[in-house]
Amino acid sequence: MPVQTIASTASVELGPAAALSCRECGERFDLGPIFACTSCFGPLEIAYELPQGDPEELRRRIEAGPESIWRYAPLLPVPADVAGKPNLNPGFTKLVKADNLARELGVTGELFVKDDSGNPTHSFKDRVVAIAVEAARAFGFTTLSCSSTGNLAGAVGAAAARAGLRSCVFIPHDLEQGKVVMAAVYGGELVGIEGNYDAVNRFCSELIGDPLGEGWGFVNVNLRPYYAEGSKTLAYEICEQLGWRLPDQIVIPIASGSQLTKIDKGLQELIALGLVEDRPYKIFGAQAEGCSPVSAAFKAGHDVVRPVKPDTIAKSLAIGNPADGPYVLDIARRTGGAVEDVTDEQIVDAIKLLARTEGIFAETAGGVTVGVTRKLIEAGVLDPSLTTVVLNTGDGLKTLDAVAPTTGPTATIRPSLDAFRDAGLAL
Amino acid sequence: MPVQTIASTASVELGPAAALSCRECGERFDLGPIFACTSCFGPLEIAYELPQGDPEELRRRIEAGPESIWRYAPLLPVPADVAGKPNLNPGFTKLVKADNLARELGVTGELFVKDDSGNPTHSFKDRVVAIAVEAARAFGFTTLSCSSTGNLAGAVGAAAARAGLRSCVFIPHDLEQGKVVMAAVYGGELVGIEGNYDAVNRFCSELIGDPLGEGWGFVNVNLRPYYAEGSKTLAYEICEQLGWRLPDQIVIPIASGSQLTKIDKGLQELIALGLVEDRPYKIFGAQAEGCSPVSAAFKAGHDVVRPVKPDTIAKSLAIGNPADGPYVLDIARRTGGAVEDVTDEQIVDAIKLLARTEGIFAETAGGVTVGVTRKLIEAGVLDPSLTTVVLNTGDGLKTLDAVAPTTGPTATIRPSLDAFRDAGLAL
Repeated sequence: MPVQTIASTASVELGPAAALSCRECGERFDLGPIFACTSCFGPLEIAYELPQGDPEELRRRIEAGPESIWRYAPLLPVPADVAGKPNLNPGFTKLVKADNLARELGVTGELFVKDDSGNPTHSFKDRVVAIAVEAARAFGFTTLSCSSTGNLAGAVGAAAARAGLRSCVFIPHDLEQGKVVMAAVYGGELVGIEGNYDAVNRFCSELIGDPLGEGWGFVNVNLRPYYAEGSKTLAYEICEQLGWRLPDQIVIPIASGSQLTKIDKGLQELIALGLVEDRPYKIFGAQAEGCSPVSAAFKAGHDVVRPVKPDTIAKSLAIGNPADGPYVLDIARRTGGAVEDVTDEQIVDAIKLLARTEGIFAETAGGVTVGVTRKLIEAGVLDPSLTTVVLNTGDGLKTLDAVAPTTGPTATIRPSLDAFRDAGLAL
Repeated sequence: MPVQTIASTASVELGPAAALSCRECGERFDLGPIFACTSCFGPLEIAYELPQGDPEELRRRIEAGPESIWRYAPLLPVPADVAGKPNLNPGFTKLVKADNLARELGVTGELFVKDDSGNPTHSFKDRVVAIAVEAARAFGFTTLSCSSTGNLAGAVGAAAARAGLRSCVFIPHDLEQGKVVMAAVYGGELVGIEGNYDAVNRFCSELIGDPLGEGWGFVNVNLRPYYAEGSKTLAYEICEQLGWRLPDQIVIPIASGSQLTKIDKGLQELIALGLVEDRPYKIFGAQAEGCSPVSAAFKAGHDVVRPVKPDTIAKSLAIGNPADGPYVLDIARRTGGAVEDVTDEQIVDAIKLLARTEGIFAETAGGVTVGVTRKLIEAGVLDPSLTTVVLNTGDGLKTLDAVAPTTGPTATIRPSLDAFRDAGLAL
């Protein structure tokens, strides 16, 4: 595994981040742009020296901070002065109390939608990319890169532009024009690769190991340990917005599974720091039936995840071989949660349900979590009398195709009152 | 003019709103769903009894309020408990310090972009519709309606869904599918009218005067005096986010001109209340050359605006006969500002400039304001040494067509390092 240390990593200033630690064997490494253990090839994650002392004081410090993920800078691998640097300041998105949706789903407790479509490029990816940008700066990288078929490309392009970094994003050459425009408009380099998404990923791995990729930070490869920590902020915000309280149940979409594991990590940190009361919570994972390897493993009682070939409209969740699948299974089981999946038709129904009840137009991934929530309530697995938070991680404007075939005018009429009366739409 | 008073308007509880007042002759009317003076046919606007007393106390009260336009409830025609009602809680969007853009434009003072793409349905329309919803509730309307070709349709559909109101939106029957989906997804009635936008508007005017329209609140017709006030919140937020300080210069897009006049009204209120220091500011209006009747009148020194037939990619500004045009001319002249226009090509260039410098992907209307800012600096009209705020009122995802023809991959290559090297994209 190539190690591209440009800055001296011994002197890297990334706040409370103390080291990298192997999730499998626990071996520790200096902070640097590495992502796999040299002993056992396990994934590396950040080990922290979190702030000690009075939780009340930390809580006040957070509450007095900026209205973005940087209010949690003391708990993130970022420099203390991060809020003053040019970045997109993502996060602190709305936690919407969804009473209309609750009624439709038969929820008698409190139901909330954490709506990450409010981020700068309208998906949760702005959170993780913002952390990767700080790591890139710390390691002296001058180019921000990734492979992507959607949300990530825009998030990287926008964040690099604002941060004054060069960007170079790799996409399959035959993406729809809308997605290409979203990836290209921020003015970075955009390279179409003749091949599918797997070919793009293989190419990026080659590039990281080659002198050609010197100085390049791939947000979801060599900067992945930092990048992934951005998802912890969803946990922090949910608890703070609930009045420093853990929800009873959270429904989280699964792509690689990273987001779900980091939300659990964030909740555990809040408990350890005394910022929330230590009591049980349940974590539920949500997949599309057309890409449900973790759900299948959960139901079969397996500890390992058998890869699948994705076939679903929920493209942002279509990872057939989810790297964090085993960790997701462990968390769902340990917390008393579950992993469930829904069909494409149920996803579309759920997108429309959320739109017509709460005025939130979600990406297909939001349809997956709302659809799974409905299914789990009907099955008696999710308790409708408790406090439940459902994640919407992206924006419906980016997946218009999913609902377009079944969403249109109620009627088309001549511009006359008679025609309107005949259409039967008056009160 | 039909007056549809369902609730008794004498008892209407809309916070500091005291009456409706004719902008032309000053005649006052009880609060109600009316929009034109019965004496002179002038437009009605809200007259307030604004809070008296210590500005410091009001400032603290606002700062302790919710992170939405409802922090300014004491200055808006809404009930005091508005924040607790189901609505989309728009506003308090980012005021982005645009240092990269400033460098490109030769601005040596502070340059900010007020980025309203962060609103729930990604345009400033959420602000005005949220106020209209409260008026609709106060007057006992059960259906929220509008004519629209874009942003407004989605804003009305979403707000009505969340508020538990019925919605019925009228659009030209031949809109692009993407816009139809955005208008229809929130589950309200969507009616295609066989005719152009003018035909849709004429039909809506007929409907308001007919018993068929009983109980209907048309946000931009019979609720317009309330609706329009939502734009004041842009002024409040800009000043609060600058640390309770007036900017020296603001660049605002002109469609009907209502937004610009209400921003000026908001600034005047802040001065009158002692919330900001009373000192001069300049207001600049921005139009697309293909629909520039106000700019033309400004340059010709006219007080009246001669209607035009719009032909521009900036569809959200394409109002050929802007109702508030004369007021805009008056404000631009009185404050020492100007009104300017840019070509479609300059709009596209400006969208890309903002995206590559600040990571903000703006709607065509944002291209108009950034483009006009550049033009006014080059002409020596806008002072680059002062504090300037440029408005972006919408989201680039909604006007992808504007940039699509000129935005694409830098290169398309085989998945090999050799091909990448040959493309010349390495550092």
